[in-house]
Amino acid sequence: MKRRIYLHMKSPDEARELFLSRFDGKNMLAPEEISTVAARGRVTAAPVFARWSSPAAHQAAMDGFAVAAGSTYGARPDSPRLLALGKEAYPVNTGHLMPAGTDAVIMVENVPDPEADPITVETPVFPWHNVRRVGEDLVAGEMVIPEGVEVTPWAQGAMLAGGVTRLLVRRRPRVIIIPTGSDLVPVTALGAEPPAHFLVEFNSVILSGLVEEAGGVPEVWPITPDDPAALTEVLKRAVAAGDVVITNAGSSAGSKDYTYQAVAGLGEVLVHGVAMMPGKPTLLAAIGGKPVIGNPGYPVSAILSFEEFAAPLIAGMAGRQLTPRPTLTVRPSQNLPSKPGLTEFIRVTLGRVGDRVMATPLPRGAGTITSLVRADGILKIPALSEGLEEDRPVTAELLVPPEDIEGTLVILGSHDNTLDLLATLLHRRNPRLRLSSGHVGSLGGLVALRQGRAHLGGSHLYDPETNSYNIPFIKKHLAGLPLKLINLAWRQQGFMVQPGNPHDIQKVADLTRPGVRFINRQRGAGTRLLLDHLLQQEGIDPAGIQGYEREEYTHMAIAANVKSGTADVGLGILAAARALGLDFIPLTPERYDLVVPQATFADQRFQELLEVIRSPEFHSAAEALGGYDLKDCGRILWEH
Amino acid sequence: MKRRIYLHMKSPDEARELFLSRFDGKNMLAPEEISTVAARGRVTAAPVFARWSSPAAHQAAMDGFAVAAGSTYGARPDSPRLLALGKEAYPVNTGHLMPAGTDAVIMVENVPDPEADPITVETPVFPWHNVRRVGEDLVAGEMVIPEGVEVTPWAQGAMLAGGVTRLLVRRRPRVIIIPTGSDLVPVTALGAEPPAHFLVEFNSVILSGLVEEAGGVPEVWPITPDDPAALTEVLKRAVAAGDVVITNAGSSAGSKDYTYQAVAGLGEVLVHGVAMMPGKPTLLAAIGGKPVIGNPGYPVSAILSFEEFAAPLIAGMAGRQLTPRPTLTVRPSQNLPSKPGLTEFIRVTLGRVGDRVMATPLPRGAGTITSLVRADGILKIPALSEGLEEDRPVTAELLVPPEDIEGTLVILGSHDNTLDLLATLLHRRNPRLRLSSGHVGSLGGLVALRQGRAHLGGSHLYDPETNSYNIPFIKKHLAGLPLKLINLAWRQQGFMVQPGNPHDIQKVADLTRPGVRFINRQRGAGTRLLLDHLLQQEGIDPAGIQGYEREEYTHMAIAANVKSGTADVGLGILAAARALGLDFIPLTPERYDLVVPQATFADQRFQELLEVIRSPEFHSAAEALGGYDLKDCGRILWEH
Repeated sequence: MKRRIYLHMKSPDEARELFLSRFDGKNMLAPEEISTVAARGRVTAAPVFARWSSPAAHQAAMDGFAVAAGSTYGARPDSPRLLALGKEAYPVNTGHLMPAGTDAVIMVENVPDPEADPITVETPVFPWHNVRRVGEDLVAGEMVIPEGVEVTPWAQGAMLAGGVTRLLVRRRPRVIIIPTGSDLVPVTALGAEPPAHFLVEFNSVILSGLVEEAGGVPEVWPITPDDPAALTEVLKRAVAAGDVVITNAGSSAGSKDYTYQAVAGLGEVLVHGVAMMPGKPTLLAAIGGKPVIGNPGYPVSAILSFEEFAAPLIAGMAGRQLTPRPTLTVRPSQNLPSKPGLTEFIRVTLGRVGDRVMATPLPRGAGTITSLVRADGILKIPALSEGLEEDRPVTAELLVPPEDIEGTLVILGSHDNTLDLLATLLHRRNPRLRLSSGHVGSLGGLVALRQGRAHLGGSHLYDPETNSYNIPFIKKHLAGLPLKLINLAWRQQGFMVQPGNPHDIQKVADLTRPGVRFINRQRGAGTRLLLDHLLQQEGIDPAGIQGYEREEYTHMAIAANVKSGTADVGLGILAAARALGLDFIPLTPERYDLVVPQATFADQRFQELLEVIRSPEFHSAAEALGGYDLKDCGRILWEH
Repeated sequence: MKRRIYLHMKSPDEARELFLSRFDGKNMLAPEEISTVAARGRVTAAPVFARWSSPAAHQAAMDGFAVAAGSTYGARPDSPRLLALGKEAYPVNTGHLMPAGTDAVIMVENVPDPEADPITVETPVFPWHNVRRVGEDLVAGEMVIPEGVEVTPWAQGAMLAGGVTRLLVRRRPRVIIIPTGSDLVPVTALGAEPPAHFLVEFNSVILSGLVEEAGGVPEVWPITPDDPAALTEVLKRAVAAGDVVITNAGSSAGSKDYTYQAVAGLGEVLVHGVAMMPGKPTLLAAIGGKPVIGNPGYPVSAILSFEEFAAPLIAGMAGRQLTPRPTLTVRPSQNLPSKPGLTEFIRVTLGRVGDRVMATPLPRGAGTITSLVRADGILKIPALSEGLEEDRPVTAELLVPPEDIEGTLVILGSHDNTLDLLATLLHRRNPRLRLSSGHVGSLGGLVALRQGRAHLGGSHLYDPETNSYNIPFIKKHLAGLPLKLINLAWRQQGFMVQPGNPHDIQKVADLTRPGVRFINRQRGAGTRLLLDHLLQQEGIDPAGIQGYEREEYTHMAIAANVKSGTADVGLGILAAARALGLDFIPLTPERYDLVVPQATFADQRFQELLEVIRSPEFHSAAEALGGYDLKDCGRILWEH
């Protein structure tokens, strides 16, 4: 095991420039000739010229009779012209060649008896009436489409109209993707249970899609183990077979990351380590004139590194312009400190609250692929910055259409399993609407409302003094804000334990028993307050509970800890316990309310959400989750 | 032959609403289960929930040694902790399960001798350091992606991380396209020469591409002749086989348009004729519960009708949102009158000149597919309007990315074959730049410059009085505008005649010979002025020339008329004659100049064009066209 460090780590821009100046995509691949019929989406490698004119000669543009316009002059219903068939008038269909001497078509509908000879013409026609003149659309030799453009369906039509049945297009680069790592399980081998000691190899699926979107043809090779000789061997074959080679992962500076070693032995390493996060362990190299990319292993790193380096290379080779993502001015909902020296990419959800688009950060870890799945945009923190300030405008790159952001209702606060349900039903009812929920705890939601960062809050804060929910907290934290408190559900809180309740947890006091490992919710969560209230009631010192200081942010995360055995018990709702097949010891029902500022209540989007909340469909689906009582659901309980 | 008229023609909006309310795409197709690996771009038919947590248990996030963080507290380089392998420290790789009792990973790089037992720990680690905790990314049972969204590569990754190897997606509707018409030639049968009496059937290629882009699976059936019985038979089979049926064409009210008859005999016609142009002959119907669309025959009509009616239906069935085209405020470069009662779609080229984006209309005919190929945008003239006013702001739907418009240089004026060449070389040099040329004649170009509608003009106006080119006209028409006159080329003007010169045309006087059919350029064209000058010199009366009043707008159109035999002779440039294999009788060389206002000259985009104009590459390519002398090419000849 040998340690290696990144030498001369480059900025993303420097690294990209160095790489792309070495590989000028434009001239790397010879063009290929393909059928016009199959050319949609391909990029022309040369201007396309019409082989013949369209129309190739004067053509009838209507079904009817071709005539010399002059022969109809002066015709009137009471003094018609009679034109002899085959001499002065010729039956034609749309597209037929105009007979010699004719320059106009009388529509068959305008001839009183089209079966007669001669035909009767009651009104004159002018020259070229209902005639498509030669070359009206395209002239032989004329350029139909230029070089370097993507072929649209109508460009296919125009080429075929001009007799062009084959054309030269840019070849799509063949991109070989090599998953590397001894502890990887291919997705084809996945069974009913998660692989215990292995990582699921899904990066190659992600990278394949990204290669296609950039204009390349992906080809995934079998997983190569962490073995320098094997990696060297497969790299040799890949460079011979493909136009671009991407390994994933093994390109970092770790002891078992053999990519650097194998690549350096075969060719030239141009860049090793890029000052970006996620995405730092990127390697850019050349082997035998072919570009080789060591792509990082954590999925978010893999994607962001691909976008910075692989995508522009592949698009350039395919002759495509990468469309820059649309951007929007947004405001971070909290301070986002960042390490100077690294360009950081923060995934955010976005929602317009009032006249500001608020950006709420998602988990920053390079391993949290869901942070990209849930993201509406990406904030880029420049290398020279120490971070972004709360509420100060910054530019976000959008991952969703701007309309989606306009249609998004942002709920911040306590987590509840019915929120996913509401999101599904709302989107099903009106595809333009989305419900985006951020789990910051009940109190966090109230603070967000005060700061105008959310449309609504989700709260289940119990006040022992008044024996009531939420209202005392709202009075304290949202004094000046007109709002309505609307019930979503009563739900059962209790202990989640492993099936069979092996530690025989029955009451709060059981948490202090030796050997019982607890997992807690974060400060400000209603469930945490509930626990503290129960402990106080019983006079129990939290210091006596093993794991009291371990915090998770959602009911489901608590359940997952119990399920995996890293904790024995946690406090949460029945729905979460049931979702993971845990046993549940009920402690108390509690009220979960929506805190709805007047501005939100007046918003048509919220009114649609309220209709969903009050729908029988939501009620039956929520009841099916277990532990919910919807007797007050949708009722306005209080306002100020 | 029977005449039929459109009964109750509907507006596009009314027609669409009627059609889509009859066929609610959302519930027409049962979902299908597919592999997650193959799901990119598909639309989820149900929310997707994680089958297991990711990580499924606490995992090492680095290669190294799993330890209990507590056992490292107080470690210092001069007072290290020694941890026994297999008891206090466990070798782990990234992704490995954390052994019981451990909660942190010491990176192998930070252990002085990783092969020793016990290992030496020189600095403490805190709990959960280098550990991915259970459910950090996804919790079992958690929603990974909602219903009704398009699957991205990273959503595929997230689903696979959560053990979801198969998922329910919306089925893509099978769309059967039936070309109809007795005079159609399939594109597969095209040879070296244009089909004389037939139309090339390329609409099915266009429609196939549009079906795919809307989210359907196209299937083109063989051409059905104009025969009601055959059409009825094929419609029956198509409705049984497909989810949507599109016929093309035969849906208008013409005598041989049998679609109405066949459809009405099998089912219910909902809409026949839509108040839009192009696109009027659209038929919307239901046969046996399946949607049937009679799509018009002219290609532009076919496309616009598809976009209004077929695309939203197909997208709805596939569960996709049609992304509205981006829009831009533009100004028509001329008055655009339109027939009230019809919504008209005008294809335009766009270019930013100064602070205005000018929209120059392309040919309006429904048969000119090139008008869509060349279009940057579409202007919609509402049914209640009589047209759009010159220079009054209107909204254009964009067919190209907005960046393309910023990179477009607009040249209006006389047509020359080297302009296509310049466009190709400019785009090849810098893919962000485009040269868009409109053929309005030399004088038309000067007028456009005066009105600020173009970046530059192309002119070859000869002034007999001063025996000079362009300058007298510029002094007259562009008095106040600082500009430079830059030569593009000297070119040979002469008579284009059929090969072998069957009418033995040698001089201007030969045009008056009986039986010689001339084709002229439009008023304001430099070539027209040249002809008139030559006629005047010789004292010839234009009235004695057969065809003097027949006008075309480009050299190539003149050549095409001669080539197809609809005229015997026209005046034009050698390059055009040579492109179509015509004989050429040289009359006189003439100067073709670019008129470049100072504002354009100072523009970096023009400077790039000028470099192309002065490049050896352009010179040799222009000389290869024939008839060009580039001795003055790129020289500034005059300025004011």
